[in-house]
Amino acid sequence: MTLKAAGRQSLVDTVVDELRAQLTAGEWPVGERIPTEHALAEQLQVGRNTIREAVRVLVHAGMLRSRQGEGTFVVATADPGDIVRGVQRADVRDVLELRIALEAEGARLGALRHRPEDLDRMRAALAAQAAFQDDEGQPASGQYEMYAEHDIEFHIAVVDAAHNTALSATYRWFSSSVRDALVAALQDQQMPQIHKTDHHDLVDAIATGDPEVAERAARALLAKPKQAVDALLDAE
Amino acid sequence: MTLKAAGRQSLVDTVVDELRAQLTAGEWPVGERIPTEHALAEQLQVGRNTIREAVRVLVHAGMLRSRQGEGTFVVATADPGDIVRGVQRADVRDVLELRIALEAEGARLGALRHRPEDLDRMRAALAAQAAFQDDEGQPASGQYEMYAEHDIEFHIAVVDAAHNTALSATYRWFSSSVRDALVAALQDQQMPQIHKTDHHDLVDAIATGDPEVAERAARALLAKPKQAVDALLDAE
Repeated sequence: MTLKAAGRQSLVDTVVDELRAQLTAGEWPVGERIPTEHALAEQLQVGRNTIREAVRVLVHAGMLRSRQGEGTFVVATADPGDIVRGVQRADVRDVLELRIALEAEGARLGALRHRPEDLDRMRAALAAQAAFQDDEGQPASGQYEMYAEHDIEFHIAVVDAAHNTALSATYRWFSSSVRDALVAALQDQQMPQIHKTDHHDLVDAIATGDPEVAERAARALLAKPKQAVDALLDAE
Repeated sequence: MTLKAAGRQSLVDTVVDELRAQLTAGEWPVGERIPTEHALAEQLQVGRNTIREAVRVLVHAGMLRSRQGEGTFVVATADPGDIVRGVQRADVRDVLELRIALEAEGARLGALRHRPEDLDRMRAALAAQAAFQDDEGQPASGQYEMYAEHDIEFHIAVVDAAHNTALSATYRWFSSSVRDALVAALQDQQMPQIHKTDHHDLVDAIATGDPEVAERAARALLAKPKQAVDALLDAE
């Protein structure tokens, strides 16, 4: 990498930080158009290409939106990257607790709003998973990945039964983060025993239509990985 | 904007989408180094500057991390931008329900883990807020912004009492998104009546140390904005 490129790279990052700080401070409210590339270049004393690259970063981050021929508008004043950085600083227990929060709410709302096909989807995921387990209901040797795949499907079906777009999007993101973190933390440890009956209990609990019953079942199901992680961290 | 710049802009976006798809598909696992700029430029048949810009976008998004002289490494295989896009597609009820999930969990864990100073912080926010309310405990005329500021402080203090980095980071991000969405949805409507006693009830509930009691108090506090939003959406 040439010095020039290195210098330019850090300049774009500086401009990103500057624009993000102005957005976070409420300099331009949601829905408002930000100044033109030309005006920002003047204000920050950098080239227009640098502004354009920085704006692109914030468009992809979901803070800005460009409308052809109209300019660039504010869509959010908080940076979702903060979530990622928070999660990256957090330990696996923190992230698992966050997942429990989302899944418990999914079960509560799912009890009130599920449709018959939501329950079918949960049961189909469990039936598909059964093909990859041994006689004791544990992942069969060499089949862990397929087993886990259907497990994710099941949990996503639970949260989707809440019919809440924001909850589903957030849960999908966290379930993959949690998986990465859990696998990294537990790789050389005993994975918690998985009891298939708990999964079916959760489906039945959601089917009752009682949010309290459904939340309790969701928390019971996730209590085992939580205990495994607590034990792991306490042992450190 | 010149045609060339417009073409180059969309090319970077295309490369971002391509690299994101490869990350999401698990092409490179977390912790692994992605191919060099040179190799990626060859593979995707674009210039190295285009690759560099696309990588920058994904670094800021929290999916990649560059280490000086070592290369670029995968830190997450899911894009937090998906959360933003999900939240942007969601209606205000969805987003409020998500906030309730995070705050209910904050209260549960806060009951178990709060320190004396966490309760002090909640009470200090309520005391500061009291300066901006009228005799009936509602925001005083022209003081809504300062009143709301201390309300945010209070709710963040509740979630921070859980001492969970991931939960606090996520809640902070959502509380500002929710505020933007709620203000936009309710601007011409009657804002829900706010009862100061409910806030103090929540502090007392967390202080009991019982997670169930604390969760119930958190849900009771948020039940009023939830009802206001439900009524608004049902009326549409």
